Amino acid sequence: MKLNIAVLPGDGIGPEVTAQAVKALKAIAMEFNHVFTFQNGLVGAIAIDKTDNPLPEETINICKKADAILFGAIGDTKYDIDPNAKIRPEQGLLGIRKKLDLHTNIRPIIAYDDLLTKSSLKIKQIKDTNILIYRELTGGIYFGEKKLSEDGNTASDICQYSRHEIERVAHAAFQAAEARKGKLTLVDKANVLESSRLWRRVVQELEPQYPKVTLDYLFIDNAAMELIINPRQFDVILTENMFGDILSEEASVIVGSIGLLASTSIGEKHAMFEPIHGAYTKSANKGIANPIASILSAAMLLDHFGLYDEAARIREGVDKSLKLHITTPDLNTKYDNISTTKVGDFIEDFIHNPDETNLN
Amino acid sequence: MKLNIAVLPGDGIGPEVTAQAVKALKAIAMEFNHVFTFQNGLVGAIAIDKTDNPLPEETINICKKADAILFGAIGDTKYDIDPNAKIRPEQGLLGIRKKLDLHTNIRPIIAYDDLLTKSSLKIKQIKDTNILIYRELTGGIYFGEKKLSEDGNTASDICQYSRHEIERVAHAAFQAAEARKGKLTLVDKANVLESSRLWRRVVQELEPQYPKVTLDYLFIDNAAMELIINPRQFDVILTENMFGDILSEEASVIVGSIGLLASTSIGEKHAMFEPIHGAYTKSANKGIANPIASILSAAMLLDHFGLYDEAARIREGVDKSLKLHITTPDLNTKYDNISTTKVGDFIEDFIHNPDETNLN
Ligand SMILES: CC(C)[C@H](C(=O)O)[C@@H](O)C(=O)O
Ligand SMILES: CC(C)[C@H](C(=O)O)[C@@H](O)C(=O)O
Repeated sequence: MKLNIAVLPGDGIGPEVTAQAVKALKAIAMEFNHVFTFQNGLVGAIAIDKTDNPLPEETINICKKADAILFGAIGDTKYDIDPNAKIRPEQGLLGIRKKLDLHTNIRPIIAYDDLLTKSSLKIKQIKDTNILIYRELTGGIYFGEKKLSEDGNTASDICQYSRHEIERVAHAAFQAAEARKGKLTLVDKANVLESSRLWRRVVQELEPQYPKVTLDYLFIDNAAMELIINPRQFDVILTENMFGDILSEEASVIVGSIGLLASTSIGEKHAMFEPIHGAYTKSANKGIANPIASILSAAMLLDHFGLYDEAARIREGVDKSLKLHITTPDLNTKYDNISTTKVGDFIEDFIHNPDETNLN
Repeated sequence: MKLNIAVLPGDGIGPEVTAQAVKALKAIAMEFNHVFTFQNGLVGAIAIDKTDNPLPEETINICKKADAILFGAIGDTKYDIDPNAKIRPEQGLLGIRKKLDLHTNIRPIIAYDDLLTKSSLKIKQIKDTNILIYRELTGGIYFGEKKLSEDGNTASDICQYSRHEIERVAHAAFQAAEARKGKLTLVDKANVLESSRLWRRVVQELEPQYPKVTLDYLFIDNAAMELIINPRQFDVILTENMFGDILSEEASVIVGSIGLLASTSIGEKHAMFEPIHGAYTKSANKGIANPIASILSAAMLLDHFGLYDEAARIREGVDKSLKLHITTPDLNTKYDNISTTKVGDFIEDFIHNPDETNLN
C-alpha cells in the first residue's frame, strides 16, 4: 500500500516521540512491502516562532493532501501562564481538527497486565479494563463563540451542539459498542445543561437502530468518580468535547502513564493520529519522554487503513517492551536511563525480527 | 447561642441522612447549652410532587429567615432519563444557590487514616491528603443563558463570568491558603476558554495581595489526572462552577466514599451546609445511606458560627465511628447491617458521652 503521511511533530516532547513513531512506520513499510512517504509540517508554538501563525497555510495543505496525519503535541508554558496572549499554540491543534472536520476522536483505555502495578489504582480495581472513549472533537464549548467585554470585565464561551454534530459521533460510538461488549454510556450533565439534554434526546432517538447495544447514562461528575472506582463497568463511553478531554486524561491513571494513550481523530475525509498527552515542555530534549503513545498512534493509523497485521506487529513490540521493562522512566522501576530513542529502537528491531528481539 | 436552622431534606436518601445530622445538632445544643430550632422546607422532586414547584416560595422564605440551612440531596432518576422534562428537581438546588447568592462553595477532601484501605487508590498515594476545594457556585455554565432552537435541532449554554464573581471566591480561596499551607492551585482551561483566561487574569491581579501564597495553575484535564496520581500536592484548589463539580466528586475516591464529603456554601448573607453526594434514589429507605457527609455538614455549620468545640465534638464522634467500624455498608467490611440510624445514634451518644461511647 502507498501512504502519504503528514507528520506534525509540534512542540515540547512532540518531535522526540513522533520520531519514534515514524521509525516504527518505516520499519513496517520495509517488512510488509508498503511505500510510506512522510512530509513534515509546522504547528503550535514552533510554528508561531517561525511564521507567527500556529497553523500555517502550508501545513493545512500538507495535511489535506495526505492520506493520514501523525500529530505530536503542542503547547508551551510561556503561553499557558499568559492569559493575554492573542496567538496561542492550541489554535494550531484546534484549527486542524476544525478545518479537516475531524469530529470523532477515539481514545482507547487499556490496562496492560504488565503495567498493573504502575497505576495509582489498586490492581483488583483495574485489571482487564478496556474502554473506548468516543469524544466529539469539533463542537461544544471549544468552538462556540467567545467574548470578552470591552472593559475586560466579563468573558464568555458558548457551548453549542447541533443534532447533526451529535448524530455522527453517536453512530460511530453505537457501532463500536455493537462490535464490542454492547454497552454504551453517554456522559453528560443533562440535569443542568440544555446542550446535554439535546445529546440525551438525539442518542435516545438513535438507540432503536442498535438493538444489541445497552445504553446508559452518567452525569460527568459521577462519571469522573465511577471511572476510578469501577472502570471495568465501561465498554464504550460517548461524550462531548470538553467532558471527553477531562475523562480521557483522567483515565490515564488506570493505564499507569499518560505516555501510553494514543488516539484517532476522524472525519469524512481525513484522519489524524496523536498521543493524548501534551507537549510537556519541561521534559523536552532530555530523552525521558515516553514514545509509546505516539507509536501506538501509528498502530491506530495502520488499523485505519485495514493494515491489521502491521498494527498488530507494532502492538506486540510495545507489549514486549513493557514486559522486558524497556520503558522510559515514567514507567521504569527496574532500569535507569532507558531513553525515548532506546524504546523506539527496540520496537523498530522487534518489527524487523519479532522472534529474536530481546534486551541488549 | 440561638440558631434558627432551615432543614431541607429533599429527595432520595436526603431525608434519612439529614435526620441524623439534625439529631447530632440537637445533642450538641443540649450538651453545650445552645438553643437550636429547626424548620423544614420542601425542595426538589418531592416539592414538585407536592406543589409542582422544585423550590416553593415558602421554602425560600424559610431559608431567608434562617441563620443557616441544612440541605439534604435532590434528584430523581425519573427526571434524569427524561431530557424533555421542563420542571426538574435540580432547579430547586440551583435556585436556592442563586437566590441566596451562595457564591462560594467549600469542599474539604481529607484522607482519614482509618479509611485508607477503603480508597480505590493505593495507600501511599493518598495518606495525609488534605485539600480544600473552593468552587464558584452561582456563575458559569450553570447559570448562563440556555437556548433550544425552535426546531429542536440546536441547543446551547453560555459559560459566563464577571470579574466581580471571580474576585469574591478567589479572595476566599487565597485567605484559606494563607491560613493553611500557603499553596493555591487555579484549575481552568485557559488554553481554550475565554472565561478561563479572565479567571487567570483576575487571580493574577489578586496574587500580590497574598505574598505568603504560592499560586499555580492546572488545566482541568490535567488536574483530573493529578488529583489521582498525586493528591498530596494540593492545598487549596480554586475553580469555576462546573470544574469544581467534577473535581470534587472525583476527589471522593481519595476519601473512600462519596458518603463522607461535606460542604459549606456561603454568600454575604446566607450559609448552607450540604453533603456533596446526590439523592441516590435507588438506595433510599433501605437504611444503607451513609449519614456522615450530612453529619459533617452540620459540623461545618457549627464552625461557621464559631462553635469550634462543638464542631470538634461531632468530628471526634465521626472519627470514633470510623475507628470502631460503626459505618454503613459502603465502608464496612467488618460488620453487616449497621444502618444509617445506627451510625447517627452512635454519634449522638458520643456527643453526650464522649469518653464512654463504644459499640454496643
Ligand atoms: C491541547 C488541548 C487544546 C487539547 C484539548 O483540550 O483538546 C488536549 O488536551 C487534548 O486532549 O487533545
Ligand atoms: C445536583 C447537581 C445540580 C449538583 C451540581 O452539579 O452542582 C451536584 O452535583 C453538586 O455537586 O452539588
